[in-house]
Order: sequence, then structure tokens, then C-alpha cells
Amino acid sequence: MEPPTSFEDVYGVNTELVRAVEAALEEGPRANVRALLKPLRPADIADLVVVLGREDRRRLVVTMGDDLDPETLIDLEGPVLAELLVVMSPHAVARAIAELDTDEAVHLLEEMEDARREQVLANVPAPDRAAVMEGLSFPEDSAGRLMQRDLIAVPAYWSVGQVIDYCRDTEELPDKFYEIFVIDPRHHPIGQIALNRLMRTRRPLLLRDIMEAEATTIPVYMDQEEVAFLFQQYRLASAPVIDGAGRLVGVITFDDAAAVLEEEAEEDLMRLSGVSSETDLSDTALRTTRTRAGWLLVNLATAILASMVIALFDATIEQIVALAVLMPIVASMGGNAGTQTLTVAVRALATHELTGANALRIVGKELVVGALNGILFAILVGLVAAFWFATPTLGVVIAVAMIINMVVAALAGTLIPLGLDRAGIDPAIAATVFLTTITDVVGFFVFLGLAALFLL
Amino acid sequence: MEPPTSFEDVYGVNTELVRAVEAALEEGPRANVRALLKPLRPADIADLVVVLGREDRRRLVVTMGDDLDPETLIDLEGPVLAELLVVMSPHAVARAIAELDTDEAVHLLEEMEDARREQVLANVPAPDRAAVMEGLSFPEDSAGRLMQRDLIAVPAYWSVGQVIDYCRDTEELPDKFYEIFVIDPRHHPIGQIALNRLMRTRRPLLLRDIMEAEATTIPVYMDQEEVAFLFQQYRLASAPVIDGAGRLVGVITFDDAAAVLEEEAEEDLMRLSGVSSETDLSDTALRTTRTRAGWLLVNLATAILASMVIALFDATIEQIVALAVLMPIVASMGGNAGTQTLTVAVRALATHELTGANALRIVGKELVVGALNGILFAILVGLVAAFWFATPTLGVVIAVAMIINMVVAALAGTLIPLGLDRAGIDPAIAATVFLTTITDVVGFFVFLGLAALFLL
Repeated sequence: MEPPTSFEDVYGVNTELVRAVEAALEEGPRANVRALLKPLRPADIADLVVVLGREDRRRLVVTMGDDLDPETLIDLEGPVLAELLVVMSPHAVARAIAELDTDEAVHLLEEMEDARREQVLANVPAPDRAAVMEGLSFPEDSAGRLMQRDLIAVPAYWSVGQVIDYCRDTEELPDKFYEIFVIDPRHHPIGQIALNRLMRTRRPLLLRDIMEAEATTIPVYMDQEEVAFLFQQYRLASAPVIDGAGRLVGVITFDDAAAVLEEEAEEDLMRLSGVSSETDLSDTALRTTRTRAGWLLVNLATAILASMVIALFDATIEQIVALAVLMPIVASMGGNAGTQTLTVAVRALATHELTGANALRIVGKELVVGALNGILFAILVGLVAAFWFATPTLGVVIAVAMIINMVVAALAGTLIPLGLDRAGIDPAIAATVFLTTITDVVGFFVFLGLAALFLL
Repeated sequence: MEPPTSFEDVYGVNTELVRAVEAALEEGPRANVRALLKPLRPADIADLVVVLGREDRRRLVVTMGDDLDPETLIDLEGPVLAELLVVMSPHAVARAIAELDTDEAVHLLEEMEDARREQVLANVPAPDRAAVMEGLSFPEDSAGRLMQRDLIAVPAYWSVGQVIDYCRDTEELPDKFYEIFVIDPRHHPIGQIALNRLMRTRRPLLLRDIMEAEATTIPVYMDQEEVAFLFQQYRLASAPVIDGAGRLVGVITFDDAAAVLEEEAEEDLMRLSGVSSETDLSDTALRTTRTRAGWLLVNLATAILASMVIALFDATIEQIVALAVLMPIVASMGGNAGTQTLTVAVRALATHELTGANALRIVGKELVVGALNGILFAILVGLVAAFWFATPTLGVVIAVAMIINMVVAALAGTLIPLGLDRAGIDPAIAATVFLTTITDVVGFFVFLGLAALFLL
């Protein structure tokens, strides 16, 4: 086999493959579909499923039947996953749940209706069922939902040789592990050892002498966003999870944390643009229309509010129609400057770069930035307006309105997310609509108000 | 020690600590600063450095001197890192570069001016210097910059016991590793073995019989964004990097990939909001003003364009001032609906959920969504306008304008990012400004144009 030289050589899915699978699903015998999917890894089959249309997606699952690797399901989410779990037989889903790690099995159950979940769980062997039921008992988005229960925990008086022998002799080890955990008699984690440390240490050495005692330990009720931050912060491969009494109850691995990190970054992006984080590219048009309409309705309300501000000055506009021509510039520049500030603040809050400790300094800096850019663009816009309409006073009025609105935008762009965060609300969630309402209302009011005072 | 129960118990930095460090830096003896920093991990010291003000940041580095752990630097970036590397002595930086992994050392050198880089490199021992120089020779944002060169590569005919003995006997192993790589005589990687697999396999077994042959291999010139995607996709702990001839030249680990993933998600978010991805919370006000002004200038140009469209209809507005009151609603709703679509498309392109294979279907769906929400909000806005100004025809005009603008927004929101992506341009980079220009121009033109035709 030739060594890969590009992304396309490494990633298993491409347009030709999708077209071929679509053709095979619609015409060919089952064997063709299976042959096309055979070289793919489960994660690639999941991507393929997402890219396929609704009908083909169902056909693919039916065609593959029990040959569909359960691992395929763990890379799916939202409506696509929910849909497949309904198309698959309860037995097939139960088999997947028994085979997967606890956290992955919980991920599947989260997407099912209660009745379906009961039906599936009845087909899962008792010990696996108990494990996933316990996983489900933790709050959504908590460490408890992310963790898997299979791990290696050994006492500190064991030697390296004993651990190696234990791993060789034990049938039921986790599929993947990167560290082993050292526990005391109360089952509290007191240290951990990376596998590479075990590999390079001679057999007689005791774990207590080589273990890392200051490991990052995750309380089982910690929010998944905080868990993901700690993984990124300390570059963790895995971390022990403890219950309220300090007992080791599970392990979270880097890939779980990376998935959360991606999910949270996506959520911030979507929320800032007014898209529900529940949304998904594979949603039906009707569902998408509904999820987007909510935000548009809020936006309509604020747009009408801005219109009402304009209506206050209708007599002024009637006399100087140039105001109607220029007024969107003031509002738009304020909105854009504010959005810049807001985005930086939301992101910095998420990465803990903006905290109570430096909030005042950052707000101060943003005010200076707003004022400086306000002055810069006030001069530009003032000149444009003065020459365009041959009215110097109009230039001065729009310039002053611009400075005021851009300073207000800077203030709103920092104080809104800081306030939401302080109140325990995700700063991304309602920040943009607050912000543009303020910059629209202030922009129109100040510009038209100054015009009414000085130009009539 | 009590087991942690909250995020604050696990993460080392908080406002009290920052305040205490600030006080110690400004008044106390050096020993106080050192005592406060002693319990912190390098990543936490890095966060502390970011949150501190400019002056305190310099003082901290000077105070810590050679006691500053080089690992602290790898979690810093941009202007803060550049600043510290200037404050530190060339010898201290050289020592850090010699101590760190290749990819981390390269990260530091990237932030230095050429002259400073020469000066520092002169102080780095020859073998380390050669390694980082080679790292620097790869293009920015390529796999070659991300990889570290230290890895374990062994032949397929070795047994598990031989590998374990080799790890125990070799002084110079990588700091951390998660897999060992199996190579052929030409130094091509032919398989890899996770450490947990080695741990559970008996000594006499041969690597060729237990290795995973279908491993994901990264070409050294692959873009870091693609590398990060593959790590996420296949949940990789580490992956071998090969040169053009297929020879194993380095290894990338999950933490490098996670950092890229975070960086890229941040870049998308920032670009969609018109903030340069080069920006940083710790930039000075002047630098921030400059980086933000570019986008605001572009926005000013498009706002003036929209004003010119309005100016075409100044005679109409003079007669019906209600048009000036209502026109921002049409533009704003189009802009918001378009931004929703755009954000979903940009994100889906980044995660390979939107590809050539399903582009047509997604564009079609977004058109339907745009039309449905367009009709819904057209009715709402039409009723509001008709009653507010007691002019039913005005309601019809704004309703029709609204439908047209929201369908255009849906088209633009999908076709712009798809087009930019096809052209090899980051779809996030200029998409928003394109989009709002279109929705503003179309919104104003259609609404005022229809009004001129039917209301005068």
C-alpha cells in the first residue's frame, strides 16, 4: 500500500463513496452495500450515515442489520441517532448497549423515548443494565454521564510486576486504558500511574514509590464543561471520578473530554448566532423552521422596538430625509463593534481568561478601544455625510452619535456577558439579542435626537 | 486532604490567588511570590500570567527567574508569550527550548523576532538545535510543526518482552507516550501497539502478531486542522507522522490535536463575528483597536452601500415616512435568518457533515426553511404594519419584501460558505459581511421599491 500523502488518503468518506453507497442502496443487492462499507471504520460509517438522506439512512441500517458495528452509534447524536435507534430492533440496540462502554451506552439511552428505553433495557443482561441505569441516574451533562466504570484500581503496596501479571491474567479489562489508579482500603484514589511509567519501571518497584499523587480528580457531579476544561488545561489522558464520599467510581478519558469541548464550542458559536444548540443539519425542514423561529421572533420584537424609536422622530425625518438614509449606518456600526467585543468576552469567559480578577481591566480596555474606533469612524462617517448631503452640521451630528453608540457598544459587549455569567446563565445564550437591541435603540435615538435638536 | 467536590477545588487559579499574587508582586519579598506559586502546576501559572496585568506579568517572570518551569510557556501564546520571551534572558529561553519536546520548542521560536531567535538558538545545544530547526522548516500549521520527534519505533520481529526490557533499559525515552510504533527496515511504520495491549500480552508474543496494522498515518505536510479532525474522528491517543518517502519522522499526541481543535473552533467563532483570529484578550488597547478597525471599515463600506440603496428612494420616503420607520425590520430579519443558516453551514463544513455529496439537499432544505419562516414572519410583520399605520397595502408590501429577503438570506447563507469553501477560502472569514450586505441591499431595495410601485 502506498503511504498516504493527503487528507483524502486518510479520511475514509468522500463524495464518490457516498454516491456509490446511494446507488447500491437504491438498486444493488445487499452484498454491494456491505462490500462498500467493509473497509470503513465505525466512525466513518457514522459520517456516511449523517451525509445520506433520510430514506437511504434507514435503508442502510436495515440492510446492515446485526452486522452494523455498535461503535458506529457512539459517533452519532441528536435526531439522526434517535431515528436509527427506532429503526433498529430492540434486540440489536440491547446488544449494542451490552457491548459498549457505560458512557457510550448511556449516550444511546439518552436519545430514546421512555417506552422504547424500557423495551430495550429489558433485553440487556442484568449487570450491564445496572451499570447503565446508574449512569443514567447522574444529571445530564455531569461527569457521571461521561465516565466509564471499567478501570484498573490496585493497592499501593503492589509491585509493578504484580500489576503486569494482573493485566495479563485478567480477562475483563477495559478496552482501552492509559493509566492505572492506586486506591486505599476505603477505595479512595490516592495516586495514578501512566502506562508508559509502568513500562519503563522494573518489576520489583512498589506502586507507592512511583505513583503520581497529585492527580486531577473529578467529582461525579461536576459539569461536563468544567471536566473538559480540566482535561485541556492539564493535558490529561484520563482522570479518576469520585463520588461524594471520595470513592473511585469511574474514569473519564481524553476522547470523551474532546467531544465535550467540541460540543461546547459549537454551542457557543450557535448561540451567538441565534441558533438553538439542539439543532442539527439532519433535522427536517419543519423542525429546523420551528427551532429557528423562536430566535427570529425575539429579533422581530427588538426590531419593532427600534422602529418605535424611529417613529418618535417621524416629523424630523419627514423634513430631512437624509436622516433615513444615514441612520442604518450608526446602528450597524454599533452592532458590529459590539459583536466583536461580545464574542471576545464570551470566548474568554469560556476559557477562564476573563475572570472576576481582571474583569475591570478588560472592561476599561474595551471602553478605550470603543472610544478610539468610535472617534476614527466618526471622522470618516462625518466627512462622508457632510459632503454627500452638503450639510456640515449633519456630519457633526452623525459623528457624535457614532462615538456615543460605539462606546455604548463596548460597554454592553463586555458587561452583558459578564453579568449573564455572574448570574449563572450561559453568556452566549441571550447576549447577541441584548446587545443589538441596545445598539439599535441607542444608535437611532441619539442620531435622530441630536438631529432634531440641532438640524431643525 | 479532603476529596474535591467542585470545580474550584480542582482548578488552581481563582480571584483570591490572583489578588494575593498581585499584592506580593507589588510589595512583598520575592519569597512570597514563590510561595504562592509553589503549589501551582505549570498550566495554572500560565493562566495566572494571562490574567495578570502587563506590569505584574513582567515582574512575575523577573521574580521567578530560572525557577520558572519551562512547561509554563507551552500554555501561553500570542502577544503574552512573545512579551515573556523578551523579558526572559536568552539563556533561560535556550534552556527551556532544550528541555521541551520539539513541537513545544518550535511553538516558542515561532513567537520570536528573527534576531532574537538567532540569539537564543546560539545558546541551545547542537542536537536540540538541529531538531527544532527541522521542526521550523515545515510550513506553519502543518503536521510537521505539531509533531514531536522522540518516539519508540521497533521492528516487527521483536517480542513483547524485548519491548519491555528496551523501555526499562533506555534512558532517553519520550516523557510521555501512549503507543509504540512498529517499523520495517526502510523505517516505514507498518503498525502500532497501544501500551495497554502490551501490558496485557505475555512476554514471548511477537509484535507482528499483536500490532494494529490499519493505523491512521499522518503525512508531515498535512494541515493541522485536518490532523485535529482525524484525531477527533478516530479517537486517537497518538499517531505516527511520515515524510514524503513514507518514513516515520515523528508522533503527534492527542493533547496537541485538542489544542488545534480549540484554536480552530475559536477562529471560526471570531471570524464570523469579524474579529481577527490573531487577536488576544491580553493585547494592548491600541493593538486591539487596530485589529478590529479593519473589519469595521469593511462594514462601513457595506453600510454606505445600503444607504445608497435607501437614497435611491428618498422621494418615496419623503412622502411616506412610515417606510423609514419599517425598513430596518426587513433588513434585520433577513440578516438574522441568514446568519443562522450561515453559522450552521460553516460549522457543518468544518466537521465534514456538509460536503459535495449532500450540498444540494441542504441548500434545498434551507430554502424551504427560509420560505416557511419568511411566510410566518411576513404575516406577523404585515399585520403589525397594516394596523400601526392603518394602511393595508403597506402591510402587503412589507410582507412580500420580507418573504423575498428571507429566501434570499437562506440562499446566501448556504451558497456563500459553500462557494468560499470550494474556492479554498475559509468559509468563516468573509461570509458574514457578504451575507449582511446582500440582506441589507435586497431588504431595502425590495421593500422601498415595492412601496414606490404600489403605494405612491
